[in-house]
Amino acid sequence: MPGPFAAATAVEPVAVGEWSASIHPGWDIAGNANGGYLLVAATRALVGATGRPDPVTVTGHYLAPGQPGRVRIAIQVLKEGRRFATATATMFSSARPLLAVLGTLGDLSQAQGPELVEGAPPELPPPEQCVRLHPTSTFPPPFMGRVDLRLHPDDAAFATGHQSGHPLMRGWFRLPGGEAVDSLALLCAIDAFPPTAFNARLPVAWTPTVELTAHIRANPAPGWLRCRFSSRFVTAGFVEEDGEVWDDTGRLVGQSRQLALVPRN
Amino acid sequence: MPGPFAAATAVEPVAVGEWSASIHPGWDIAGNANGGYLLVAATRALVGATGRPDPVTVTGHYLAPGQPGRVRIAIQVLKEGRRFATATATMFSSARPLLAVLGTLGDLSQAQGPELVEGAPPELPPPEQCVRLHPTSTFPPPFMGRVDLRLHPDDAAFATGHQSGHPLMRGWFRLPGGEAVDSLALLCAIDAFPPTAFNARLPVAWTPTVELTAHIRANPAPGWLRCRFSSRFVTAGFVEEDGEVWDDTGRLVGQSRQLALVPRN
Repeated sequence: MPGPFAAATAVEPVAVGEWSASIHPGWDIAGNANGGYLLVAATRALVGATGRPDPVTVTGHYLAPGQPGRVRIAIQVLKEGRRFATATATMFSSARPLLAVLGTLGDLSQAQGPELVEGAPPELPPPEQCVRLHPTSTFPPPFMGRVDLRLHPDDAAFATGHQSGHPLMRGWFRLPGGEAVDSLALLCAIDAFPPTAFNARLPVAWTPTVELTAHIRANPAPGWLRCRFSSRFVTAGFVEEDGEVWDDTGRLVGQSRQLALVPRN
Repeated sequence: MPGPFAAATAVEPVAVGEWSASIHPGWDIAGNANGGYLLVAATRALVGATGRPDPVTVTGHYLAPGQPGRVRIAIQVLKEGRRFATATATMFSSARPLLAVLGTLGDLSQAQGPELVEGAPPELPPPEQCVRLHPTSTFPPPFMGRVDLRLHPDDAAFATGHQSGHPLMRGWFRLPGGEAVDSLALLCAIDAFPPTAFNARLPVAWTPTVELTAHIRANPAPGWLRCRFSSRFVTAGFVEEDGEVWDDTGRLVGQSRQLALVPRN
């Protein structure tokens, strides 16, 4: 039996180069499906179409908000190599494109090479001493009921109007009920946290994602993931948000960067 | 009259959704065209097809090496919005795909918003006190004759067998002969420097790019660009390389991240 996350991001082939998925209710933020959640479904279709188990690098461009209901995912495989396959996925709701994805996939269990790590997992209080965002119909959004996310107390006070002043969000992530976070679910983890801009003391209400790129290095070990998201440059109406996800063994399992709009509030 | 860079990356429409370009000799590294150079040509076709002057966020996946000769660029426009257009470009040499690109384009002259900058241009000695890599038929590669690149002396000694130990490359970039670096040429600047891994004291001869994403914030002011490329995580046979490009007025004009392979030497 697939867990609730796997079921909510399931895809099925309907024709050559065409897959189907369903945006489930409850995965939304202010009525629109979470971007990482949509990216998982599109990438699951890429996995199915290429026969490669893991996303290695995946980029999504967000074209329109996703609402609950059936979506069609058109796949074009561009290269099937020995080690990697590269393909595009375009998710449509009726004729409207919601999300365009370009991805290279492979088998991360084969990954090896020299090691140089200039960084470490973020230091976090234990999960039970962090701040859990419980879902509401407005804010925190319904999506928070689908994941188990615990914010570092220093980064969580924005929710009560006390922004830290630093565009930083750190915390723990797991799926509820002990469902494993695999390389696909990591694509949800990297877009699950509140925007870093919420802590930046800027006149910003929301930062819609234009583009999100994930680099997945490994399937995580079981247990909590330590996550860190930060921004350095809010300029020209844009902000980048860089993420790192570390597993319970202290291994970097994924990196992310997104470009988001910074509209004036 | 276009400058040598513009001429070497020119594209022309040949049919609906199909453009043509020519990989010029001399833009290669060990016989294969520089990845940023190829990305510029593909993105120039996206600019032509969408009528938007600037790449905002562009991702390229490198599928096969490019050699001099004609290439075909197939364009699929996915969305044409008020502010942005999103499209894919696939570059082919005969039937072989070389490069897949997903990009969102717009007009950066309209860009504005609140500002928060936690970073600064890299400190560099003046260009004449930095190290110019002169092209040879092997290493430094022919490509170095097409750009004017000056490495920070601390980062340049790898070329004589003295790696700094830090996966870092800093330096100046401009196009020869006073040719302006526009938002498209920035896509060349972000892939023009030697790999950071060359300074990492790892058993690595080359780090082929799997994927390269650029975020362009602004068209640079005239003059030298200050560039900084660094890596933090060599793991699982991969390395990320993060870049920043700053213009002569001290403004961040672009960011980049690439995922490259780290094969054992």
